Amino acid sequence: MSTPTTHAIDSDAAAFLRDFRSLGVIGATSGGGVDRQAATPADAQARTWFTTLAAHYGFRTETDRIGNVFALLEWNPGAPYVLAGSHLDSQPRAGKYDGAYGVAAALHAGRRLAQEQRVNAGPAPKYNLAIVDWFNEEGCRFAPSMMGSSVYTGKLDASDALAVTDRDGITVREALTTIGALGTGDGPVAAAYAEIHIEQGRSMEDSGTTIGLVHSCWAAVKYSVVVDGEQAHTGSTVIADRKDALLGASRIVVLLREIADHFPGAVLHTSVGQLTVFPNSPVVVPSRVELTMDMRSADEEVLAVAKTLLTAGIARIETETNTIVGVEESHSWGLNAYQPAGVELAAKCAVDLGLSHRPVFTLAGHDSINMKDTVPTVMLFVPSVAGISHNEHEYTHDEDARAGVDMLTEVVSRLCRGDLDGAQ
Amino acid sequence: MSTPTTHAIDSDAAAFLRDFRSLGVIGATSGGGVDRQAATPADAQARTWFTTLAAHYGFRTETDRIGNVFALLEWNPGAPYVLAGSHLDSQPRAGKYDGAYGVAAALHAGRRLAQEQRVNAGPAPKYNLAIVDWFNEEGCRFAPSMMGSSVYTGKLDASDALAVTDRDGITVREALTTIGALGTGDGPVAAAYAEIHIEQGRSMEDSGTTIGLVHSCWAAVKYSVVVDGEQAHTGSTVIADRKDALLGASRIVVLLREIADHFPGAVLHTSVGQLTVFPNSPVVVPSRVELTMDMRSADEEVLAVAKTLLTAGIARIETETNTIVGVEESHSWGLNAYQPAGVELAAKCAVDLGLSHRPVFTLAGHDSINMKDTVPTVMLFVPSVAGISHNEHEYTHDEDARAGVDMLTEVVSRLCRGDLDGAQ
Repeated sequence: MSTPTTHAIDSDAAAFLRDFRSLGVIGATSGGGVDRQAATPADAQARTWFTTLAAHYGFRTETDRIGNVFALLEWNPGAPYVLAGSHLDSQPRAGKYDGAYGVAAALHAGRRLAQEQRVNAGPAPKYNLAIVDWFNEEGCRFAPSMMGSSVYTGKLDASDALAVTDRDGITVREALTTIGALGTGDGPVAAAYAEIHIEQGRSMEDSGTTIGLVHSCWAAVKYSVVVDGEQAHTGSTVIADRKDALLGASRIVVLLREIADHFPGAVLHTSVGQLTVFPNSPVVVPSRVELTMDMRSADEEVLAVAKTLLTAGIARIETETNTIVGVEESHSWGLNAYQPAGVELAAKCAVDLGLSHRPVFTLAGHDSINMKDTVPTVMLFVPSVAGISHNEHEYTHDEDARAGVDMLTEVVSRLCRGDLDGAQ
Repeated sequence: MSTPTTHAIDSDAAAFLRDFRSLGVIGATSGGGVDRQAATPADAQARTWFTTLAAHYGFRTETDRIGNVFALLEWNPGAPYVLAGSHLDSQPRAGKYDGAYGVAAALHAGRRLAQEQRVNAGPAPKYNLAIVDWFNEEGCRFAPSMMGSSVYTGKLDASDALAVTDRDGITVREALTTIGALGTGDGPVAAAYAEIHIEQGRSMEDSGTTIGLVHSCWAAVKYSVVVDGEQAHTGSTVIADRKDALLGASRIVVLLREIADHFPGAVLHTSVGQLTVFPNSPVVVPSRVELTMDMRSADEEVLAVAKTLLTAGIARIETETNTIVGVEESHSWGLNAYQPAGVELAAKCAVDLGLSHRPVFTLAGHDSINMKDTVPTVMLFVPSVAGISHNEHEYTHDEDARAGVDMLTEVVSRLCRGDLDGAQ
């Protein structure tokens, strides 16, 4: 990539910030964030934002059979594509950056590379370019998360994914059809993948780093838990006769935090995010509680010890609360490394652009975790102020957001010329 | 009341059991119970069961401005009414006896007294008779509980009650209108009240008692609680930065049980029946939890100590979980005695009928708690097998249910002739 003029830099940055801000008003919440759960009207509007701008910048768009949207630029007819992107769906009352920043950054990286190719009129890059909005990365309306990239990479069967229902019994197929987002086909053939995201932690802010080179994802285990007790009258049923499912569930929530606190140095993260009580009436002792929980660590041995503590703790809780606890491991992954060649390529780009950088872990899942198992992949971070994430107050400084677009543009440019070919 | 013949007893009992069983199929659940929350289609069907049978037995029915249904028999034009009844609405997945038994028993007491009056053709009783189905005793769809009797006794303003909304934003007025159950007027003028209910505890079963003479209601305090934390990513947010509203709420659930266990002898009942998590997504640390809790005791001093322990415990939980807990006392009552004259009258009836009896507490609320503050009131219990309540497996033996109808018939007969006039 040639060195752009100062004027071009300013106008590139201004165009990016203008487009990114127009995305942030879609599904805006009163608390300053967004709510764009997968295949909702707000998600549909965000997808229209994407296809509209992509067309404006000269891309052709297509939607695959699971609702992934690809904006395609074909320099080299028949060649595979370098994919770059992230996701436009969000958690409920989420921030404006998670996923959205990555799609906007990739779209602008693509815009700049397309323009450069037009202006320079040099030989076509080896690979074509596709900017992607992966369907349902968040997984809050339809489980599992990373649904679109899981289907794209063959890890999840499309028909299984389309049959998943939300809490109202609406299937993914129905929801996608309703918003006109159920396409056909498998999307473009990938040669490589790049994604940029906010850190969702504060290691980069604390160390004053602009670009994070993601080398690994923490190991994680996720559980679906059902606590069964017995419905009873809250007023009249003596305590000794109670089988209070909510007491059992609450003890599990407390246990999870105790397990995290058991390990010094913040090496283990444990959480219960979702908990639903039945029948949930003020004067009825709950008969059943369903909850999801997860534990994550960079150290697989820590995670193994934590699992042992969890099993023993739950057995104790069952006895002490007179409930029955069913624990199902719904999803897990080991310490998950990105290809070292991708980290090296990213480090070279950062050096060439004069951007501060360091290797970082990702603690959260990203679509790149699916993609890296299929093609050479580069995963980048920009800092998050105070590490705030899945929260309306999520924020990344404009200068960091702009630097991230510069960095992604450089990485995608090198991927298009084949610099990661053969990386394992 | 004259001594009925053996044949009459058998046919009365058979008619009662037949009618009571026809009620139990309305809103029936797969687990053997019923779900007839207030002003739902199932509740509407139960109300039709009541008005249909009441008309069949010679009563005229009318509905007041808050949906209470009265089945009226006017022996003595212009005189006030002895009211007898309970409620046909239920908790979600409840048993077939709670409330329903009391309405069916009162209807059959009325049927027998009406028949006796026709056959004997003696002088008219001093008071007329009204069998009542109080609207929304359970309070699970629309708070507060005992809504119909609260409006009837002037403790709750009718327009406030009609404006209460359920979780879908439907008002009581809309719900009653939808099922055609919004009447007019204040209902008949009461001279006295009688109600029979299952014990919802096991003191009577444990002691082999057929009739419970309810002398007092446990003191109780109910709270609405909001725990505020901060939404965050479950995977990436370090534990030290978390303000986990669900952890705070879970600690409160555990605290409540610890407070109950603090007092030996099962003298305090504590519960959290309802708990709702926001945003309730698997990968989001909860920002807010709303819950309801209650504490009940026959000993007001125990309750006072429990409140002190609760306040101290919640302050500790706020500090330790980095959350803010708002506690609002939504409803409370002291140790609440029924008129001793009513208990004495009921004891005499039990002796005359040869039924085993003993004074008992009620731990749960009943519409009679509202009525006793207005008119002389008798509250009766029959045993509950294993004390099971607010549960599909709630059960009372037929012989106890039949004895209860006999007992209620005798009590109502004496109330109609004015035996409790002037009781305080």
